[in-house]
Amino acid sequence: MSATVVEIVKASYLKTKPNDETLGFGRTFTDHMLVMDYSVATGWTHPRITPYEPITLDPAAVIFHYGQTAFEGMKAYRTDDNRILLFRPEKNFQRLNASCERLSMPAVDEAEVLEYLKQLLIVEQDWVPSSPGTSLYIRPFIIATEAFLGLAASKEYKLVVILSPVGSYYQNGIQPISIKVEEHYTRAARGGTGAAKTAGNYCATFNAQTKAAQEGYSQVLWLDANEKKYVEEVGSSNVFFKINGEVITPELNGSILPGITRLSVIEMLRSWGIPVVERKVSIEEIFRYDDEGLLEEVFGTGTAAVISPIGELEWQGRKLHINDHQIGEVTQKLYDTLTGIQTGKVTDPYNWTVEVK
Amino acid sequence: MSATVVEIVKASYLKTKPNDETLGFGRTFTDHMLVMDYSVATGWTHPRITPYEPITLDPAAVIFHYGQTAFEGMKAYRTDDNRILLFRPEKNFQRLNASCERLSMPAVDEAEVLEYLKQLLIVEQDWVPSSPGTSLYIRPFIIATEAFLGLAASKEYKLVVILSPVGSYYQNGIQPISIKVEEHYTRAARGGTGAAKTAGNYCATFNAQTKAAQEGYSQVLWLDANEKKYVEEVGSSNVFFKINGEVITPELNGSILPGITRLSVIEMLRSWGIPVVERKVSIEEIFRYDDEGLLEEVFGTGTAAVISPIGELEWQGRKLHINDHQIGEVTQKLYDTLTGIQTGKVTDPYNWTVEVK
Ligand SMILES: Cc1ncc(COP(=O)(O)O)c(C=O)c1O
Ligand SMILES: Cc1ncc(COP(=O)(O)O)c(C=O)c1O
Repeated sequence: MSATVVEIVKASYLKTKPNDETLGFGRTFTDHMLVMDYSVATGWTHPRITPYEPITLDPAAVIFHYGQTAFEGMKAYRTDDNRILLFRPEKNFQRLNASCERLSMPAVDEAEVLEYLKQLLIVEQDWVPSSPGTSLYIRPFIIATEAFLGLAASKEYKLVVILSPVGSYYQNGIQPISIKVEEHYTRAARGGTGAAKTAGNYCATFNAQTKAAQEGYSQVLWLDANEKKYVEEVGSSNVFFKINGEVITPELNGSILPGITRLSVIEMLRSWGIPVVERKVSIEEIFRYDDEGLLEEVFGTGTAAVISPIGELEWQGRKLHINDHQIGEVTQKLYDTLTGIQTGKVTDPYNWTVEVK
Repeated sequence: MSATVVEIVKASYLKTKPNDETLGFGRTFTDHMLVMDYSVATGWTHPRITPYEPITLDPAAVIFHYGQTAFEGMKAYRTDDNRILLFRPEKNFQRLNASCERLSMPAVDEAEVLEYLKQLLIVEQDWVPSSPGTSLYIRPFIIATEAFLGLAASKEYKLVVILSPVGSYYQNGIQPISIKVEEHYTRAARGGTGAAKTAGNYCATFNAQTKAAQEGYSQVLWLDANEKKYVEEVGSSNVFFKINGEVITPELNGSILPGITRLSVIEMLRSWGIPVVERKVSIEEIFRYDDEGLLEEVFGTGTAAVISPIGELEWQGRKLHINDHQIGEVTQKLYDTLTGIQTGKVTDPYNWTVEVK
């Protein structure tokens, strides 16, 4: 399979684009999408750009019953000089393939799908918003489509990429959020699917998320499944703690999602000479450091919100207030630099951005 | 909502029914299905029997991204005098609602959906096969359909019930199978979704299942997520061990699926005066009992295969051969009695069967 130009079926009717000011997250989609099919006999085949349109599946499709699926989340940004930039997109397709492996799904040709994505973005370039904090969210996903109720990997799949212009993930912009440590529910266990970006990991968190929201928290912080002791991640972000000048983040252990923002933050901190370690870190330890006055900053990292300062942590009835609910210095510098690189406002010494042209 | 007669749109073309002899599992579906919709504003609404037809969803539907879904599996059996029996169907709808709760999904009215299912079965009655070992497999499932990429419970759902005439689950009929104890992968952890019948639990097992099949085993036996020490369940069955005259099965602990066959087996054994205990049981203990010559029978229980005798267990390179690979006495009696009750061949002292008429 070496076709690098996809077939394009243009939408006969184009939607009215929303104003940048009214952009929320994940409700508005562009006019077109990218689709590809897989069968064991043919491999991945028939890449095409089609109008954004419903997906039609047999009611017995594996996705509906056994949930074989993987997805990605990435963004395209518009620069001041009207170029369109992607941020480390090859990492997303690498991770998509890692997810596929865990889910017994066929790998895609990473470079090829990235090429098709660029073609989709060219078709949809007018949809990339330009106001500060906005971007075009890109959601590639693969679903198992074979009509078969046996407990076995599907022999047929569909890859779809949809696009959604988005505003800031947090409606009030970047400001410290309150997080509750979840003690009852589990997101993922070692040997499970936590390191893969797959649907079942997310619905499993809704009960905890709802409970936390009712209590006034934005997100939950997940602990490890076994001992409910070690920090894993926060909602759909990885988490970092600045303690006495050193930055600590939980090491990748098979149940944490290996975030691309996480990786980038680690690389940036290293290049700035700020010590950063990936290791097991217990929630008890974090509270102890705070008692000792050493906990300086806490933040989450993820494509949706980029960098989210955390101002408050609740655990077993104890509350911890971080840096007076102010955005920390390193947190702010990471946010400014990362969003600066992503939008072409700051030079990109790491060669992370990829222009779509 | 109190409508008890569903709207019926008949298929304009009826499929040719397969011969009982060629029935496999889960590839052939009947002419009609049951559908119901949910929105936060209306609740569950518009129950209808439609032709078996594709489901059409927005590409941003929550099911494709965050996997909010729950399903059930049950069977309708044809008796020798041509009646159609369900086996404890109310238990399946209770469990469906328990799954919905874990997945932040709205409950259904159990009695009402059972009533609709019966109407669907009346429409499809000719599809219930009659040969020994055959039945009509019933697959109710609920999927989240709202087009929204935010991490929150969907506000819209669809319930669908499809029907599939099935032969024996194991192609060679009831005979002892070989099972491998899985040491690397995890099915479910405490606080996770293991006690719910939800898609994400199943795709998570395919890698282990494939590896076991390559090594010549039918299924894997799952250990607990935390210590990889305690027996949980087998493939899509619960598991029982007969040890020195007593029957032991892992207690429900939040990560094991509470099987309806499991419950029925426990109740039958009690009524027969055979001691049965639900408790934590380690795999090491099972191997020790075998060394001591006390391990008499091992079997799995589940709707698909009803009772599956287990003839061989592999764990850490050690192999354990159970009852000379013969079906044990209690295993056989459970199989005969349960399938006898389900098909109306044996009187049903427990009032478990429900006639569809
Ligand atoms: C569970 C989870 N953790 C962490 C992340 C952050 O990963 P990334 O930085 O690649 O967006 C995400 C989201 O993408 C996620 O879904
Ligand atoms: C994971 C799992 N365990 C056990 C069972 C057995 O449950 P039941 O006896 O209700 O069919 C099933 C299947 O239904 C299952 O999917």
